[in-house]
Amino acid sequence: MKFCSNCAAAVVKRVPPGDNLPRWVCDQCGEIHYQNPRMVVGTVPEHEGRILLCRRAIEPRYGYWTLPAGFMENDETTGQAALRETLEEAGARIELGAPFSMISVPYVNQVHIFYRARLLDLDFKPGEETLEVMLCEEARIPWKEIAFRTVAATLRHWFADRGRGAFAFHAEDILVR
Amino acid sequence: MKFCSNCAAAVVKRVPPGDNLPRWVCDQCGEIHYQNPRMVVGTVPEHEGRILLCRRAIEPRYGYWTLPAGFMENDETTGQAALRETLEEAGARIELGAPFSMISVPYVNQVHIFYRARLLDLDFKPGEETLEVMLCEEARIPWKEIAFRTVAATLRHWFADRGRGAFAFHAEDILVR
Repeated sequence: MKFCSNCAAAVVKRVPPGDNLPRWVCDQCGEIHYQNPRMVVGTVPEHEGRILLCRRAIEPRYGYWTLPAGFMENDETTGQAALRETLEEAGARIELGAPFSMISVPYVNQVHIFYRARLLDLDFKPGEETLEVMLCEEARIPWKEIAFRTVAATLRHWFADRGRGAFAFHAEDILVR
Repeated sequence: MKFCSNCAAAVVKRVPPGDNLPRWVCDQCGEIHYQNPRMVVGTVPEHEGRILLCRRAIEPRYGYWTLPAGFMENDETTGQAALRETLEEAGARIELGAPFSMISVPYVNQVHIFYRARLLDLDFKPGEETLEVMLCEEARIPWKEIAFRTVAATLRHWFADRGRGAFAFHAEDILVR
């Protein structure tokens, strides 16, 4: 059972007039409670060819390695979200570069966006949601312990692009859980 | 006054433990009701150098011209959202190209993403939220009657890129209302 956040009446899931998808509708106050995908925004922070990785101190994927990233908040831009998450999770100050990857993950209703970034100093340190932070060259990336497939895909694109000497923008989808 | 969608108790706005932003928190069931930006996804549909524009049949900006675009839904990818909105608003079948623009609009908590696209046929027709659809060359774009600044910015980038013979990916922000 779900309730209306405006008037506390019970809501029902049905297709509103003029729509073609079922929504949570409040018959008391008329509000339609839409649900939309969320954006996860992060960075690929680089220093002299090595990439900064964070080991997660939270579920899901506790103990696995990830790029600094997190849910975009209201009242910020994608770039501000990328800077904030990099500072929060890795204590890292960066110069933000271009958007690098955009990966839809529809089975969790998320879109992941990663920016290129350059570390401004080496004074990074784990934030509250991070166990440890390391700078990692390509040969030492712990591919079997990467937390999320969007992170692995982004890292693979980054090293491939570096190998051919040109960074592009990569858009793709991960459709199967 | 706002209510918990899980248990119908009144929620309060405060900073949860370990967080640094105020959230709607339910003290009865413990749920934290996060609010996040929404994605608006659309296309720049082209046919022989002309761009398909839609005149809006709904508020906001009733009667103004826009590119086909709308809120991304759960259970779809950004590309599927772009195809769906182009079909719903303009009745237009397209071949989807590369992502072309990504524009944060933090004062309305939105991120707008437009893809390049090529019309597959000329059998477009206005959908329920559209008054009319037209194919428009650069000299005839109704710049003063464009519904949203993200649409105007995307169109300007498109014609500038076409002018120099190379299409890039454009990321920017519109910070002031």
